[in-house]
Amino acid sequence: MMKKAVYVSWLAILSIAGLAAAVDPALAQEAAAEAAPVGISAASKFVFNTFLFLVTGFLVMWMAAGFTMLEVGMVRTKNVAMQCTKNIGLYSIAGLMFWVVGYNLMYDGVDGGFLGSFLPKVIPEPSQDTGDYAAASDWFFQMVFCATAASIVSGTLAERIKLWPFLIFVAVLCGFIYPIQGAWKWGAGWLDNLGFLDFAGSTIVHSTGGWAALVGALIVGARAGKYGPGGAVNAIPGSSMPLATLGTFILWLGWFGFNGGSQLALGSIEDASAVSRIFVNTNLAAAGGTVVAMLLAQLIYGKVDLTFALNGALAGLVSITAEPLTPSPLLAILIGGVGGVIVVLTVPLLDKLKIDDVVGAIPVHLIAGIWGTLAVPITNPAGSFVTQLIGIGAIGAFVVISSTVVWLALRLTTGVRPSLEQESNGLDMSEIGLEAYPEFGQGSQRV
Amino acid sequence: MMKKAVYVSWLAILSIAGLAAAVDPALAQEAAAEAAPVGISAASKFVFNTFLFLVTGFLVMWMAAGFTMLEVGMVRTKNVAMQCTKNIGLYSIAGLMFWVVGYNLMYDGVDGGFLGSFLPKVIPEPSQDTGDYAAASDWFFQMVFCATAASIVSGTLAERIKLWPFLIFVAVLCGFIYPIQGAWKWGAGWLDNLGFLDFAGSTIVHSTGGWAALVGALIVGARAGKYGPGGAVNAIPGSSMPLATLGTFILWLGWFGFNGGSQLALGSIEDASAVSRIFVNTNLAAAGGTVVAMLLAQLIYGKVDLTFALNGALAGLVSITAEPLTPSPLLAILIGGVGGVIVVLTVPLLDKLKIDDVVGAIPVHLIAGIWGTLAVPITNPAGSFVTQLIGIGAIGAFVVISSTVVWLALRLTTGVRPSLEQESNGLDMSEIGLEAYPEFGQGSQRV
Amino acid sequence: MMKKAVYVSWLAILSIAGLAAAVDPALAQEAAAEAAPVGISAASKFVFNTFLFLVTGFLVMWMAAGFTMLEVGMVRTKNVAMQCTKNIGLYSIAGLMFWVVGYNLMYDGVDGGFLGSFLPKVIPEPSQDTGDYAAASDWFFQMVFCATAASIVSGTLAERIKLWPFLIFVAVLCGFIYPIQGAWKWGAGWLDNLGFLDFAGSTIVHSTGGWAALVGALIVGARAGKYGPGGAVNAIPGSSMPLATLGTFILWLGWFGFNGGSQLALGSIEDASAVSRIFVNTNLAAAGGTVVAMLLAQLIYGKVDLTFALNGALAGLVSITAEPLTPSPLLAILIGGVGGVIVVLTVPLLDKLKIDDVVGAIPVHLIAGIWGTLAVPITNPAGSFVTQLIGIGAIGAFVVISSTVVWLALRLTTGVRPSLEQESNGLDMSEIGLEAYPEFGQGSQRV
Repeated sequence: MMKKAVYVSWLAILSIAGLAAAVDPALAQEAAAEAAPVGISAASKFVFNTFLFLVTGFLVMWMAAGFTMLEVGMVRTKNVAMQCTKNIGLYSIAGLMFWVVGYNLMYDGVDGGFLGSFLPKVIPEPSQDTGDYAAASDWFFQMVFCATAASIVSGTLAERIKLWPFLIFVAVLCGFIYPIQGAWKWGAGWLDNLGFLDFAGSTIVHSTGGWAALVGALIVGARAGKYGPGGAVNAIPGSSMPLATLGTFILWLGWFGFNGGSQLALGSIEDASAVSRIFVNTNLAAAGGTVVAMLLAQLIYGKVDLTFALNGALAGLVSITAEPLTPSPLLAILIGGVGGVIVVLTVPLLDKLKIDDVVGAIPVHLIAGIWGTLAVPITNPAGSFVTQLIGIGAIGAFVVISSTVVWLALRLTTGVRPSLEQESNGLDMSEIGLEAYPEFGQGSQRV
Repeated sequence: MMKKAVYVSWLAILSIAGLAAAVDPALAQEAAAEAAPVGISAASKFVFNTFLFLVTGFLVMWMAAGFTMLEVGMVRTKNVAMQCTKNIGLYSIAGLMFWVVGYNLMYDGVDGGFLGSFLPKVIPEPSQDTGDYAAASDWFFQMVFCATAASIVSGTLAERIKLWPFLIFVAVLCGFIYPIQGAWKWGAGWLDNLGFLDFAGSTIVHSTGGWAALVGALIVGARAGKYGPGGAVNAIPGSSMPLATLGTFILWLGWFGFNGGSQLALGSIEDASAVSRIFVNTNLAAAGGTVVAMLLAQLIYGKVDLTFALNGALAGLVSITAEPLTPSPLLAILIGGVGGVIVVLTVPLLDKLKIDDVVGAIPVHLIAGIWGTLAVPITNPAGSFVTQLIGIGAIGAFVVISSTVVWLALRLTTGVRPSLEQESNGLDMSEIGLEAYPEFGQGSQRV
Repeated sequence: MMKKAVYVSWLAILSIAGLAAAVDPALAQEAAAEAAPVGISAASKFVFNTFLFLVTGFLVMWMAAGFTMLEVGMVRTKNVAMQCTKNIGLYSIAGLMFWVVGYNLMYDGVDGGFLGSFLPKVIPEPSQDTGDYAAASDWFFQMVFCATAASIVSGTLAERIKLWPFLIFVAVLCGFIYPIQGAWKWGAGWLDNLGFLDFAGSTIVHSTGGWAALVGALIVGARAGKYGPGGAVNAIPGSSMPLATLGTFILWLGWFGFNGGSQLALGSIEDASAVSRIFVNTNLAAAGGTVVAMLLAQLIYGKVDLTFALNGALAGLVSITAEPLTPSPLLAILIGGVGGVIVVLTVPLLDKLKIDDVVGAIPVHLIAGIWGTLAVPITNPAGSFVTQLIGIGAIGAFVVISSTVVWLALRLTTGVRPSLEQESNGLDMSEIGLEAYPEFGQGSQRV
């Protein structure tokens, strides 16, 4: 009996202590405070991830302004207002089409196949929003990627395409072409199952835009006067280098969002660290592309053509986009540096082929995009060159074929080119109805 | 006795288990880990909410650059430096006045009445900062809204107002007019008690700026040469369409902060989801406004005047500002699209009334602001058309009357208009003492 | 026995309650919910701090565009493409050099001495990233500061320096000069031990850039035609006031990152509150600098020269950078306001000394930087004027001596100045090979 009484007494003490620990707020807080370091709550993760999408998403949205400034700087004054109109129009249409059909086609129930659902995206009420991030934040982030692909087309085709046919092409690109090929990888489709790797879209965004631009350039043709008889290439200088430079800086800034946000999560030590590393590699690749392009231009031409420096930065950025996480900083510099080489060597090559690419988007987005995609297996052991080639080829073929169909359909119906007289007077007059710089005299180099 | 012994034994086992769970660190951590997903600590909420204010606040601050670029693009070269000076001056004065008196007048102890305290804002030391967010972050966020209202006035009155009288008006607007009407709703004053709804300020910010601009336009008068005899309206083209476009993109970007930050909290799943939805609706409304304005301009005028596209985007943004959370994406597009209609229809109307609004701020901020405020009850069941009309009317009447008093007082004392010769030579010469573009020739359309 | 039975019964009830509280999920959740407010987990702190570095870091990166726009607005059209090239080049080289050697020289194992390690920065894998923030995010944040110092030099030396010698100077500045003096304070070196205070770098970043620019200006000499015989000073107006204004707004925006991120942490109530207060003080100091410079310019010159307003804002920002946290808002306005006075008084003084500073970087970054550093003890009791003077003097002496060596070495080897003919034709022709504005006529003031 005594023994039992002792046990019972111990029990009493222990129980009360246990109870106290469990219900006394001070003790419970101490326990919680010690416990806190173990992790991040699901709710906090949700907020972190969502905020990552929103912040990096607005950076990518800002790239729409970057493309606009780059393009208005690279075209002649007589087409500047047109280029402004095309860009604000394409960004708007991209958003509308990606809501109506694009997003669901790309992400909704693709699961190994080729495309998702044709229904518009349904965004849950905030009180019903489950998952690892807000559904709307993901839509926003993916939408600005789609708009980026459309922006690429705009630059190549500047100065000789009619406004509305261009915008119709954008609607098809953003509603169907971009989402369908995107579904193959980012919608968990067949390329994803195959092991194709494209972290932030060297192929899915940049080459896609580049292929669509290339097909457009071939079907629409070169600007009047660009290529003379006997293989002569006439330089048509852009009207504002500071705006082109501003555009490049905007794109560089936006690219931190483009690549950093593609980690798709921020709510853990590992994710936050990965996003940071992506920022560093993205910056170093751009720096590598810039410096290599500047040095090469100096060596080959004896001067540092600013447009090579700008496109070198952009090619460096595109090159690192397929895999901004696994490279060491040194490899990021080299991968970006190759982008700089691509720009200096392929910009003149396109002119030899009489492909008129006003801003150099094909070297920057298509060729550097292919290079970046091929470079993934160098640093990421999960990648394989063969699979990367399959992805590049399949997406390339699909975008080339579908874009050809759309461009030809537009040429046959609405027509795509303004008359030679309209082109000569500038599209601002014929399509927009105002001048971009009504008070600025026309310098000696006006073409 | 046996039964009792069994009970005691059970007690012992259970108690020890309970105790263990409560005090053993490993088990406690497990419990905490399982418990973690239920929520976000008050401290984390504080940080999330504060960071939302800072990030969205710097986006709204950036809108000051957007208004500047929009305006310098829409005025003639001879007034560009003036417009730059007005804008950096007004943003500075807005901050100073909102600190000296505006913030407390708007938020400090209004509680059902008409205004708060006249004392300057006291910002607590970081170690004393209690509440759901940092007090300073809230001040910063509210200050940039106040500056936005002042920016609106600047555009309408460009090219024919003297610098210092304009800046004095801004000081009164930001120190008194804006905060007093703002207190009625956002300071928990009488309009808030009545149930007036204005999420991010279609009325409180945009219509307020628009009313002040309208009164200013009537009192200051039209630019020399704008309206000829017999109802003739002379188009005065802006000097730089790319800068106007850049300004519009900056404003669009900033608007994610303007509307998104107005959720006022990020630190919960529901808040993060709501901010995301606001981003989506804000973007879609702007896209709707742009596309509708472009289509209407094409239909009516046969060309897509770029300024309609830009103002269509802005009107879409203003339209969704009163309620960016409750509309479905489709309704957001439609609400913004109506903004686009407003721009195309009312810009010419103002010219018929000989109200000279250089950048189109009255259609964009005042008329679309009224529309957006009236549209709230369509999607938000807590709203009522009658209450919305009361709010629009009361704030409109207050701003019109107080602005009239200030503008007339300025006209009688300092004067508001430069001489006709000064206006003809451009205000850059008479007020700023330099040229905005000294090396650029004057084109044929120089007015 | 009865008594014992009662005790046992109580024990039973209490134990079960305690146990229930400990293991019942609902009760445990309640306990956790009550417990949650005590703090933020180490993992959440890591994410908050890292995201602060990334967001404020991209704002500081954006300042590179701000310097570019400010400079292209302040130079003549014939040197605009050159200025664009210099800036995208310097930002790239800053990143590369800070990775190769600068970062580790500044931060790795300085600990009381004068410099750290010469090895390149090793960034840990995300899975190995320990500490209070991601290592890569810190590198990114510190790198953009280094680039800022280089940007300052670019503006002063515009229009008469060759491209590659300038970029070589930048490489030495970013790889060695900036990191070595930075190590003395921010690397926990001897100035830090002494108690020198420089929160975000009035001296370490801005004066350092300013001293290097001053030495460069003395060694490179003034632009041809700037100073005539008999002490004549020829005004050389900048080519684009809107771009200069845009640049200033970009810098103002970026400065929230510059000063706010220098709190180095976001993951606690006190840190979040401190960052917020820094935002407010930074904004008010800039506003104070702007308004004071505008008023002084009006009083002295009878007109508000826009460049004084812009540089007043920047000088206000530099002035508050050494201590943006401890001043009250009123003192922040005054500290920034003194910056505005400095601009208006010292810009003409430099011309008297025939020191040709194209954008006014020496008054803004060097002189206001010294003022801001000296002002620290006014509000921060931990500071002392003597120690501040020691820091200013030691860093100034080191930067002046090391910059002199590098500039002289460049002058003796590569040469630093283009020929007079090249300078007269503009550096765009001789170094870059294109025109910045090929279509814009040359106005009457073309120098």
